[in-house]
Amino acid sequence: MTAASTPSLLFYADTHASRDLLYFGRFECHDPFIALRHQGKKIAVLNALEFGRGLKESAFDEILPLEPLQAEARKARPEVRPGPADIIALLAAKLRIRTLVVPDEFPAGLLERLRERCLDVTVARDAVLPEREIKDAREAAAIRAGNRVAAAGFAAAEALLRRAKISGRKLVLDGKPLTSERVRLAIEIACLEAGGLALDTIVAGGDQACDPHCRGTGPLRPNELIIVDIFPRHAATGYHGDMTRTYLKGRASAGQRALVEAVAAAQKAARKVLRGGAVSSVVHGECVKVFEARGYETKTTPKGAVGFFHGTGHGLGLAVHEAPRVSAPVHEPLKVGAVVTVEPGLYYPGLGGCRIEDVAWLTETGHKLLSSHPYAWEIV
Amino acid sequence: MTAASTPSLLFYADTHASRDLLYFGRFECHDPFIALRHQGKKIAVLNALEFGRGLKESAFDEILPLEPLQAEARKARPEVRPGPADIIALLAAKLRIRTLVVPDEFPAGLLERLRERCLDVTVARDAVLPEREIKDAREAAAIRAGNRVAAAGFAAAEALLRRAKISGRKLVLDGKPLTSERVRLAIEIACLEAGGLALDTIVAGGDQACDPHCRGTGPLRPNELIIVDIFPRHAATGYHGDMTRTYLKGRASAGQRALVEAVAAAQKAARKVLRGGAVSSVVHGECVKVFEARGYETKTTPKGAVGFFHGTGHGLGLAVHEAPRVSAPVHEPLKVGAVVTVEPGLYYPGLGGCRIEDVAWLTETGHKLLSSHPYAWEIV
Repeated sequence: MTAASTPSLLFYADTHASRDLLYFGRFECHDPFIALRHQGKKIAVLNALEFGRGLKESAFDEILPLEPLQAEARKARPEVRPGPADIIALLAAKLRIRTLVVPDEFPAGLLERLRERCLDVTVARDAVLPEREIKDAREAAAIRAGNRVAAAGFAAAEALLRRAKISGRKLVLDGKPLTSERVRLAIEIACLEAGGLALDTIVAGGDQACDPHCRGTGPLRPNELIIVDIFPRHAATGYHGDMTRTYLKGRASAGQRALVEAVAAAQKAARKVLRGGAVSSVVHGECVKVFEARGYETKTTPKGAVGFFHGTGHGLGLAVHEAPRVSAPVHEPLKVGAVVTVEPGLYYPGLGGCRIEDVAWLTETGHKLLSSHPYAWEIV
Repeated sequence: MTAASTPSLLFYADTHASRDLLYFGRFECHDPFIALRHQGKKIAVLNALEFGRGLKESAFDEILPLEPLQAEARKARPEVRPGPADIIALLAAKLRIRTLVVPDEFPAGLLERLRERCLDVTVARDAVLPEREIKDAREAAAIRAGNRVAAAGFAAAEALLRRAKISGRKLVLDGKPLTSERVRLAIEIACLEAGGLALDTIVAGGDQACDPHCRGTGPLRPNELIIVDIFPRHAATGYHGDMTRTYLKGRASAGQRALVEAVAAAQKAARKVLRGGAVSSVVHGECVKVFEARGYETKTTPKGAVGFFHGTGHGLGLAVHEAPRVSAPVHEPLKVGAVVTVEPGLYYPGLGGCRIEDVAWLTETGHKLLSSHPYAWEIV
């Protein structure tokens, strides 16, 4: 065996925290574990609790049981309980690893302990698995399946809004006020039944919707814009969908109607230029142009920002937010094969918020939509 | 303003990855953000997307909007887009922070960039918020509420097992095979309806249950032990429940019955000594003693470990796994106010697996159970 000429890639994370590690090993594990890419081979160290499952389910080429390595490390330093740094040092010696590279988000404490053990560890400044940004047909299909789950959620939300009755300033369904919580529960159940898990679904009406990440609480009101943003993880694959629709139960005002039309037009404008090779900030700029042309101002106030104050989109895959970003400060071209959301929004307390979000897989000449659900928003 | 004498605590994480940050700010945020404890004050830097919600929902004493800081940082280095290191350096200058301490799991790349900017940053070797291990009455109530959600899940699982019919080597319900997936879906829906979110619920029968973290797939069989482990997050508080019951639909063999009785006896033995001040490894040792006395061997095989090869328990709170651990290598005393699971288990492919898990809040003289659900396991 000869020493590796390229540094070995080292992970120490759980797969909730590191979607790179999930991508690398195709194995969900909720406690941190050691994984290596060494001379082209994927190696994991798993404890007895995970070992058998790892053998059966993961994409690792080799799985080493943790406990014998712990026993060996304990022999060398019997006074302390061996931690991950000891195990990694032992592995490095066994595999004759000279240099290691770790991801940017590698735990700082462990990095220091590895260096104390005289390991040559470099922190990568760029993505360690840049290929993750490019989705193949299997991954695109998985994201499409994730969006099918989201669409099941919208159908459930619309059914409740349709069945609800307007009673003064309230929406009432089956004798009780229709709340964000009730709609969210119906969405979550529909998503589960459709094979996905919708975490932190947003059902926010009125001024609540003007905080784009407010999940929404309490009674929903008639004649108010209601933002519904669903980003489920498809259980079978781990890939996500991410879609947003905005609704209104009752009668929209002219201002609300103009707001929704502006957001729809902005999405359309962004999609018109969205393709592999398009510059991220230019795609975003198309939305900005539409809003500016229609007189929608973006500014900060002491209570927060109003207008269009977030990016147009983000990469989607094993994480809900991943590379690339489609936003003003990013001047790089988007890559063919990237999957991004297109989700312009406008937010004005008093008038309300609107966001419309779909998902696109970029090709040389344009993109394929990986999301599909009607845009009808007024529910009588 | 005088310079701080103690180092300021710095976080940069999202609250999925850092439950310490969630504990610190009482604010869920799914993108990484900067937070500081400086001269006793809790400070967060939030972008426009989160700012308004942070003002309303979080426990931070001060929330600074990110965008003006970015603009200021851009003035100093107009050639690059300011990243978190630039913002933190700017904040440190403004607040006259001389030294910073970061948690063990702080991102290594950011640590390096902070040091390049000549900031004096130390990585904490111990917990940065050790108080998180001690739960007050409000937190204990939240964990109890989490376990009530789990109990709703068990009731749903039991209802399906009770209604299922045995047909040869299959369990059939409403004309279709009863699978792990169907039981899990029923549990997840019941948990949602009870106000919690059950992620990665385990419903594993037969040999699948012998991989303690295998979630279970495919048809459940009669006369096989089925492990059901539910660890929901209570939506209103973010605290978790974590309970396990083991079931068998049909007729248990003498071996299966003895296995279940041994696990129940081990849990009882551990609980007998479980209190604040008890040494973690001693509590674990009580389970080991019961299993050894009854002849249950723990060993590793090429296919994985058999017997009792995991710890007796772990801390529970905002994370499903947190400090302290109740296991063989931990010789420290457990603290009064800690909340831990008590979950001995035995796993023998061919015979099956059994685990029983409850949750205890430690007092000076013993503990209060924060979980409640019957232990009946044979379902005819």
